[in-house]
Amino acid sequence: MAKLPALDPAAVPEKRGSIYPEPFRSRMGDRAKRRLGDACGLTRFGVNLVTLGPGGQSALRHWHTLEDEFVYVLTGEVVLVTNDGEQTLRPGMCAGYAGGKKDAHHFINRSPAAATYLEIGNRAEGDNAFYPDDDLMWVEDENGVFAAHKDGRRY
Amino acid sequence: MAKLPALDPAAVPEKRGSIYPEPFRSRMGDRAKRRLGDACGLTRFGVNLVTLGPGGQSALRHWHTLEDEFVYVLTGEVVLVTNDGEQTLRPGMCAGYAGGKKDAHHFINRSPAAATYLEIGNRAEGDNAFYPDDDLMWVEDENGVFAAHKDGRRY
Repeated sequence: MAKLPALDPAAVPEKRGSIYPEPFRSRMGDRAKRRLGDACGLTRFGVNLVTLGPGGQSALRHWHTLEDEFVYVLTGEVVLVTNDGEQTLRPGMCAGYAGGKKDAHHFINRSPAAATYLEIGNRAEGDNAFYPDDDLMWVEDENGVFAAHKDGRRY
Repeated sequence: MAKLPALDPAAVPEKRGSIYPEPFRSRMGDRAKRRLGDACGLTRFGVNLVTLGPGGQSALRHWHTLEDEFVYVLTGEVVLVTNDGEQTLRPGMCAGYAGGKKDAHHFINRSPAAATYLEIGNRAEGDNAFYPDDDLMWVEDENGVFAAHKDGRRY
């Protein structure tokens, strides 16, 4: 039995769901995350162990302004989609997305089996994300951040 | 063949060696790192794929003031040593060390086989590290940072 600072990921509850408004939330499909970094008390970056079932997606295709992201595939097979097209990533392969680089990315599991990967991102105040394929943007007003259509109407 | 932002770690050169002065450098033993985050152009945190041969160590036992660290074991078996003692970590297990928490930690490979793990740490200006078991500290003067004995004499 692991004792902190060590951790067995099986001891961390799986979370499902997404902060996206519909119709985007449902498109994520079968996706579950275990927040390993949070469970260890880390605050400067997050580390999630993600399981994507067949058809599941990591996120809408997006890029961040101030957040570096890194993913490392543990099991199964995922398709990485970027501005340049698609490539398949298998266990032991990884990808890194520098904050501010406008190359939008996400994973789709097009295989018939589950895939698991680690996703890591630093936490940066004022970070924003953009979605070239979808009618979604985040807007900040004095009450906080909200999801809007690209013409500014709230979801 | 993976194309950036995707990466096959086998394409990243292995680096050996340590910035510790002797006699500490040699104690790291058989340790090789592939700097995956750097290879993807990330700057806000580092991600290394580390291979520890039998007898190898991740680092001197240490804690950081401003850097969160996270490790995820991929293959083999490592012993995590902290202030509370030892525990063995196997593939799929992880550990997280919050910056500023004075619980010094490192991995030792006491097994007869190689072990591999991912290590992640954010980059923070002004970060320092302390080594409770060893006569080492880092001192900053107007020319930069140098390694010193705990009584202040330079190595």
